[in-house]
Amino acid sequence: MTSALLTDRYELTMIDAALRDGRHRRSSVFELFARRLPAGRRYGVVAGTGRFLELLRDFRFGAAELDWLRHENVVSPATVDFLADFRFTGQVHGYREGDLYFPGSPLLVVEGGFAEAVVVETLALSVFNYDSAVASAAARMVSAADGRPLADMGSRRTGERSAVAAARAAFIAGFGATSNLEAGRTWGIPTMGTAAHAFTLLHDSEEQAFQAQIDALGVGTTLLVDTYDITEGVATAVRVAGPELGAVRIDSGDLAPTVAAVRAQLDALGATGTRITVTNDLDEFAIAGLRSAPVDSYGVGTALVTGSGAVAAGMVYKLVAHHDGAGGWVSVGKKSEAKATVGGRKQPVRRLVDGVAVEETIYVEDPPVGAEAGRALLVELVRDGVVDEDALGAAGTLRARQHHATAIAELPIEAQSLGRGDAAIPTVYR
Amino acid sequence: MTSALLTDRYELTMIDAALRDGRHRRSSVFELFARRLPAGRRYGVVAGTGRFLELLRDFRFGAAELDWLRHENVVSPATVDFLADFRFTGQVHGYREGDLYFPGSPLLVVEGGFAEAVVVETLALSVFNYDSAVASAAARMVSAADGRPLADMGSRRTGERSAVAAARAAFIAGFGATSNLEAGRTWGIPTMGTAAHAFTLLHDSEEQAFQAQIDALGVGTTLLVDTYDITEGVATAVRVAGPELGAVRIDSGDLAPTVAAVRAQLDALGATGTRITVTNDLDEFAIAGLRSAPVDSYGVGTALVTGSGAVAAGMVYKLVAHHDGAGGWVSVGKKSEAKATVGGRKQPVRRLVDGVAVEETIYVEDPPVGAEAGRALLVELVRDGVVDEDALGAAGTLRARQHHATAIAELPIEAQSLGRGDAAIPTVYR
Repeated sequence: MTSALLTDRYELTMIDAALRDGRHRRSSVFELFARRLPAGRRYGVVAGTGRFLELLRDFRFGAAELDWLRHENVVSPATVDFLADFRFTGQVHGYREGDLYFPGSPLLVVEGGFAEAVVVETLALSVFNYDSAVASAAARMVSAADGRPLADMGSRRTGERSAVAAARAAFIAGFGATSNLEAGRTWGIPTMGTAAHAFTLLHDSEEQAFQAQIDALGVGTTLLVDTYDITEGVATAVRVAGPELGAVRIDSGDLAPTVAAVRAQLDALGATGTRITVTNDLDEFAIAGLRSAPVDSYGVGTALVTGSGAVAAGMVYKLVAHHDGAGGWVSVGKKSEAKATVGGRKQPVRRLVDGVAVEETIYVEDPPVGAEAGRALLVELVRDGVVDEDALGAAGTLRARQHHATAIAELPIEAQSLGRGDAAIPTVYR
Repeated sequence: MTSALLTDRYELTMIDAALRDGRHRRSSVFELFARRLPAGRRYGVVAGTGRFLELLRDFRFGAAELDWLRHENVVSPATVDFLADFRFTGQVHGYREGDLYFPGSPLLVVEGGFAEAVVVETLALSVFNYDSAVASAAARMVSAADGRPLADMGSRRTGERSAVAAARAAFIAGFGATSNLEAGRTWGIPTMGTAAHAFTLLHDSEEQAFQAQIDALGVGTTLLVDTYDITEGVATAVRVAGPELGAVRIDSGDLAPTVAAVRAQLDALGATGTRITVTNDLDEFAIAGLRSAPVDSYGVGTALVTGSGAVAAGMVYKLVAHHDGAGGWVSVGKKSEAKATVGGRKQPVRRLVDGVAVEETIYVEDPPVGAEAGRALLVELVRDGVVDEDALGAAGTLRARQHHATAIAELPIEAQSLGRGDAAIPTVYR
């Protein structure tokens, strides 16, 4: 299935209208950015770049799509013909996937004819708004977990395709694994998971269920011990698996005291190496609240895939400059208050002092001179319509994860606070 | 692309473990339901059924999926062989799509061998949790709009495939149109949309942009009048299009006074038939707040596709009964407090008095006798693996929309309150 109709009707009707005087070819620059961070957040995490680039590469109107557009009279026959030959031939620069963003950061800059640059607006926003919302929440959870591993278990709490994107975004932000098999296959993310309550309920006893699971998956598996009574469940688990049992999972109850009691019980049973994983409606605050509890790993669902209260990253895609028809550039911006856009081509730099980020500096029109400015944030992602292969697939995803670790290490320490506050560094236009 | 890997790893490892003693074939009944409604909501709207049934019909493990499962050692070779031949052969009953649900309503009941019934858990939950969250929010917006038409414009605020599902869910709950072209093609939903601010900014003047749009789309089009100054924008729009202009769209500012001023200005210019559509970060509360303003239609984005504060409907999928191996049924349920499940096969009925719903009656094990009980809520959706064609595609979507209108008309009037409160009718197990 092509990605070409995953768009708003108005992208095509604008092309229809622009086509009449050739204005659809006018060189244009669009920027994708967030006007602000979700309330109280200190930073956002750029995610979606690799997915967007794959969708952009495959953005074609096939016969079925063209027939439908013709039949529905969405656009004129001339525009249908234009779309039949459509392929993106422009330039895309952007923040490296996994990098951080702040209010105004131009994290994707699309340059091309008006038609080819505007037509990918909706798709770009869908991808970046969702993926970045998940990655931004995930990064806070990783910080709260303080080194202990996290797994995405949220597939069932978001649309079935968004689930795959969420697993990828979480992995970029530092999660170690996902329950989602398609995310494992498509993006190379380690997958995990063993059994649900239904498996225990299918058997005549918890003991029988544990035995069946161990027969299939070995004693290194994770047994879910809270179907009936947790204390009995733990005792049964160790009786059946022996002290080499890999882990127990707790999915209900008041986690801090429960985990402490289970740890003591496991140790008393000699299962000192058996790990405890918890999975009950966690978010970054609940994870932080368990810092002093003997939890070994976390499984996170709803809060992760719904951006922990900020489910859409609030990004917009705005025309900031176009050719004037005589070879020069015109900076443009919407003037309505509250939604004003800074026009002009931009060159963003993260200014660092002693390796610590101090400012998101956005040079408008005039790029900075020399290296003293800081870390230049835009990299080339698409040249003349050809997508940078390094950003794609499992390898691109892993690269984004590694870059994220580098970028987040540049933040001042207070950026890791879960409390509400301003952006960790100010955005300054120069 | 098959839907078979859009699932959690543990669904397959449970089959792996159950396969060893043949328990994977044990007849099982799973229920999909919400333990509670999102805080303060009066009802939920069932959406996703038609989408789920299509995904269930196409749920097959192809060579590529099997190779990956084998290569990654997700399950044993015997289980890979089992999955190679997999097709759902069981029974599915459910609430008609578009119907309402309340805490505990068993809105999908899947019956089959344990393996075939458990393996669709994640996929079913992904679909119903997202689609129902959107439909439930949409229904409140429709109620708040008090007869004025609503359009979904939220594609850019959710994952690119979720956007298509959201458009469908909103349509079922009473929205009239969507901006999403794929939703138009796949589900037969009317599409709409004309131009963004970028189109105006591309031109040398607002007047030039309006003229270009009218040349392409006719004077019946909708002109976006707030790129620069709204009063000037409206004056320019009517000057260019004449008083036959179809509509103006306002996407910023303080809507109530702005809309009143624009209406007065349009009327003074003789454009008494020109409609006003507003699209600025609306939710059900903002829509209700505009009831006395001369708004003609609403475009809703973020709040719609993110469930207006309740982005996942909180549905779960639980084993409630299985065969005991001797031909009898065993009712089962998880016992942990807060997450307890009522075991047993159920027969839900919406009890009506004078056509008004008064109770969600759930008969456990013993179905009700006679018609006095009310409206029986479960219909057959899949028989022996064969999906009811009437629930699928554009026709099924339209049927769901019609059924929704009937079901919501049964609710007591206070259910339409946007204020927080209890479920509109109590759920009673009998």
